[in-house]
Amino acid sequence: VSGHRLLISCRDEIGLVHRITGVLLRGGFNIVGNDEFVDQGAKHFFMRTAFAGPSSTDGLVEALREVLPPEASVWLAPSTARTIVLLATKEAHCLGDLLLRHEEGELAARVAAVVSNHDTLRTLVTRFGIPFHHVPHEGLDRAAHEAAVLDVLAGYAPDLLVLAKYMRVLSAEFVARYPARIINIHHSFLPAFVGARPYHQAFSRGVKIIGATAHIVTDDLDEGPILAQGVLPVTHAHTAADMAQAGRDVEKIVLARGLSLMLDDRVFVKGRRTVVFE
Amino acid sequence: VSGHRLLISCRDEIGLVHRITGVLLRGGFNIVGNDEFVDQGAKHFFMRTAFAGPSSTDGLVEALREVLPPEASVWLAPSTARTIVLLATKEAHCLGDLLLRHEEGELAARVAAVVSNHDTLRTLVTRFGIPFHHVPHEGLDRAAHEAAVLDVLAGYAPDLLVLAKYMRVLSAEFVARYPARIINIHHSFLPAFVGARPYHQAFSRGVKIIGATAHIVTDDLDEGPILAQGVLPVTHAHTAADMAQAGRDVEKIVLARGLSLMLDDRVFVKGRRTVVFE
Amino acid sequence: VSGHRLLISCRDEIGLVHRITGVLLRGGFNIVGNDEFVDQGAKHFFMRTAFAGPSSTDGLVEALREVLPPEASVWLAPSTARTIVLLATKEAHCLGDLLLRHEEGELAARVAAVVSNHDTLRTLVTRFGIPFHHVPHEGLDRAAHEAAVLDVLAGYAPDLLVLAKYMRVLSAEFVARYPARIINIHHSFLPAFVGARPYHQAFSRGVKIIGATAHIVTDDLDEGPILAQGVLPVTHAHTAADMAQAGRDVEKIVLARGLSLMLDDRVFVKGRRTVVFE
Amino acid sequence: VSGHRLLISCRDEIGLVHRITGVLLRGGFNIVGNDEFVDQGAKHFFMRTAFAGPSSTDGLVEALREVLPPEASVWLAPSTARTIVLLATKEAHCLGDLLLRHEEGELAARVAAVVSNHDTLRTLVTRFGIPFHHVPHEGLDRAAHEAAVLDVLAGYAPDLLVLAKYMRVLSAEFVARYPARIINIHHSFLPAFVGARPYHQAFSRGVKIIGATAHIVTDDLDEGPILAQGVLPVTHAHTAADMAQAGRDVEKIVLARGLSLMLDDRVFVKGRRTVVFE
Repeated sequence: VSGHRLLISCRDEIGLVHRITGVLLRGGFNIVGNDEFVDQGAKHFFMRTAFAGPSSTDGLVEALREVLPPEASVWLAPSTARTIVLLATKEAHCLGDLLLRHEEGELAARVAAVVSNHDTLRTLVTRFGIPFHHVPHEGLDRAAHEAAVLDVLAGYAPDLLVLAKYMRVLSAEFVARYPARIINIHHSFLPAFVGARPYHQAFSRGVKIIGATAHIVTDDLDEGPILAQGVLPVTHAHTAADMAQAGRDVEKIVLARGLSLMLDDRVFVKGRRTVVFE
Repeated sequence: VSGHRLLISCRDEIGLVHRITGVLLRGGFNIVGNDEFVDQGAKHFFMRTAFAGPSSTDGLVEALREVLPPEASVWLAPSTARTIVLLATKEAHCLGDLLLRHEEGELAARVAAVVSNHDTLRTLVTRFGIPFHHVPHEGLDRAAHEAAVLDVLAGYAPDLLVLAKYMRVLSAEFVARYPARIINIHHSFLPAFVGARPYHQAFSRGVKIIGATAHIVTDDLDEGPILAQGVLPVTHAHTAADMAQAGRDVEKIVLARGLSLMLDDRVFVKGRRTVVFE
Repeated sequence: VSGHRLLISCRDEIGLVHRITGVLLRGGFNIVGNDEFVDQGAKHFFMRTAFAGPSSTDGLVEALREVLPPEASVWLAPSTARTIVLLATKEAHCLGDLLLRHEEGELAARVAAVVSNHDTLRTLVTRFGIPFHHVPHEGLDRAAHEAAVLDVLAGYAPDLLVLAKYMRVLSAEFVARYPARIINIHHSFLPAFVGARPYHQAFSRGVKIIGATAHIVTDDLDEGPILAQGVLPVTHAHTAADMAQAGRDVEKIVLARGLSLMLDDRVFVKGRRTVVFE
Repeated sequence: VSGHRLLISCRDEIGLVHRITGVLLRGGFNIVGNDEFVDQGAKHFFMRTAFAGPSSTDGLVEALREVLPPEASVWLAPSTARTIVLLATKEAHCLGDLLLRHEEGELAARVAAVVSNHDTLRTLVTRFGIPFHHVPHEGLDRAAHEAAVLDVLAGYAPDLLVLAKYMRVLSAEFVARYPARIINIHHSFLPAFVGARPYHQAFSRGVKIIGATAHIVTDDLDEGPILAQGVLPVTHAHTAADMAQAGRDVEKIVLARGLSLMLDDRVFVKGRRTVVFE
């Protein structure tokens, strides 16, 4: 999409839409799509506006701030493609799917590199001409391993990190370096089956539907705000391994969906919840 | 929901949202939710606004017209519950489901009566204390039968007609009496299996998914703008009768969904397509 | 369906299908459908056979036992319609849906009565000509209330109890009176949101999909073997009350599905899991 | 899966399961899973049996034929991995997805080569180390182009051809060379939107759900027996191009599903319908 995108969130008050659209109108911009939501319980206002017009948006954020409450969050999407780094461990399905989408130009972002704590996926990644960094965790404590990963990341200055089945828990310190900029795929329909081996838990419980959840990573494991979820029917005939196999298709589709929502600037995070304008 | 609802559609031009929200602001109204969509191909603007404030909206439509293109469609939802009449034939599942929802207060409307070309459903309807009109078609040509039905309807002045498995094709003349105010449930995933006996067609074709479609009735059979669709997996083991049985659950849910979208003023009709703000 | 149905489960051993079908063949029966599953982990054999032929099945179970391991479970479905009693509290959607299905002849069972701890649903139930028993719980401890309910139930000798949004937790003693013969609808996608107010939990967690679960009741609350599950997408715009409203449609469909699986003799219970031949 | 798989289909008669399982028992085989279906309308019997035991199945088919009606179809799955060739045109999503699955060992088959009427996908395919054959159709009539393709295929002796968005219609003569051995993905929920540009048709019709269909290729375009179908919700905001983009995810999942069903020997073709034991 050509054009600009604006995300505004603040406490609700009368006249916000009129004031915001007034600023856009005076700037010569035409609104192409507008989504607004007021959380009536929290009295909070969320608005995503896609607009066209002059290519320069210089001064726009400042002009908007003049008509908004002081604490308002105003985000004008950058006009250049964002840089993302993918983190993975040994499983190829999510990673490969994203690399294919990237190669086909489907992702509105540049995949700069892949970082993994194992060397297993090197061949796959290098097939696509993307730098692969093996940062082994053996013999290192979590802090030391994360320092090594952060070191590699620093060289790419990523806008977003995507955990494509990265099977290490990130520390609060790590997450704080990329606040609301790390997305993860959890292989269950959260909050069912938090923690380890969700497909084994699902098998043991005898569920008839399994799922996957893409979420923003916070320092509270498996509790980050949810971006997207998907499900798949299963039967008694699925072993835990069969569920894991079948679940891969949901995982990769849901992760790509969550990433796409982020890259299209469709997501607000508010506490443990998201507002997603689809 | 308390509050007001406004649907505006017109050719797109710069500044529409600002002008419309200016009128609302000057009237002392606060926007609770706002959905806007511009059909870029057709250069057409659609906006649904939910707003709170003064209970009187006197003069509001006129004030809006002053800032809108002359041909704009402006719809301010009435503050009173709408009146609907249900038409049915012999099958009870959609009709019964709507009667239950009505009794529970789930429908934002008053079901004034049921009209049927058979007497089969009289017991069910009268159980719920709703007037039942049997208007038999035997021995009548279509025009005469429709005249008799229209006669009954006239006594209720319905805002909406709901065809709850009414198995008669309506003439263009009949439809013209209730333009964009008749909704139907078709027992297939349109446009697959138009016409008669869709489940037999689905069985014969060996599909793995069946569906149902709620749509606005136009004078072009099975071609009306689509409100909502739903699907259900089937297998080789489903006979056409099994599909019909299984399909009932989708039919009733999808019809209720389509009706609810209409009653919540979430639907614009534009040619053969709808804009539905969910 | 005319014809007979047989459910056999036992430890797996070689030749079981041949022996079982040999008994049926010698009895002059023709197999119409056969589902077999061997749980390879537990080395357990499950088989459901639908068969036609002589109307009498006298001696068949005995003949089967002669060729099966001593501990085998052999269940020959009764040829008469089963009797069910529905338990409810105040919500009408599941109860009303089942009453409609019963009236339409869609349930392969006879609904003998409805029992409720509130009087709210009396009008709805009596509309359908079904006996309604109000067994209030005020002023009674759980044991005393359950004794009163059991007393009413005893008069109907039900084959199955259906908890159609019955909001009381049943004691282990009550459950033991109807082992694997009570089914419940839980208004979440178990095991997410066990316990009270699942829609509030779902809202608070910000999930994007909600669901419902039909399960066999055991004395371990919300942990009974799962019969069927269904889901529904939601967004940030759904309040907990909106989720509850939307969830009703999934609840009633999933409960009816679970009941139908039981009445069609498609369910084996094995520990916390079910084998369901659909 | 280790073990053997047997597909038998013939006119129904009494005693078939007993006779077939008797042959297996005498051969020392143990049944692991058994699915049987009798099409009551057509009086036709379908049975899929997975069984373990001796690694040699010499003489088994002959022994089975002795107890089956003369015209019975008996298929014993080969113990070696099947060879498949993928045909594509310019779109990468289905092809890339299958190549990834193949590399991960997820496909129970060997992808021997990719054939395309364009050179666009050469880089992608050669990344995975798979031979790529560009067989251009420019300047050739259909017969000449197909002869060139068949020539390439002959070198690989494929068991199955997979049309991974191959945008050429195959002649009856071509199809006859690989009867019931070619599978295709059609980018609509068949039979809706047969023929060209289904997403444009879907947009124009204003549907709320789109889909994809994997089917066996016959000489009747878009009418082959259906293996698997999948769907995806869309809204008024989806242009035809957006639908095409969103539809890719369903297409690749459904094609992989259809292929997997074929490779697991879960499919019977009977006229325009399939029997699929999942």
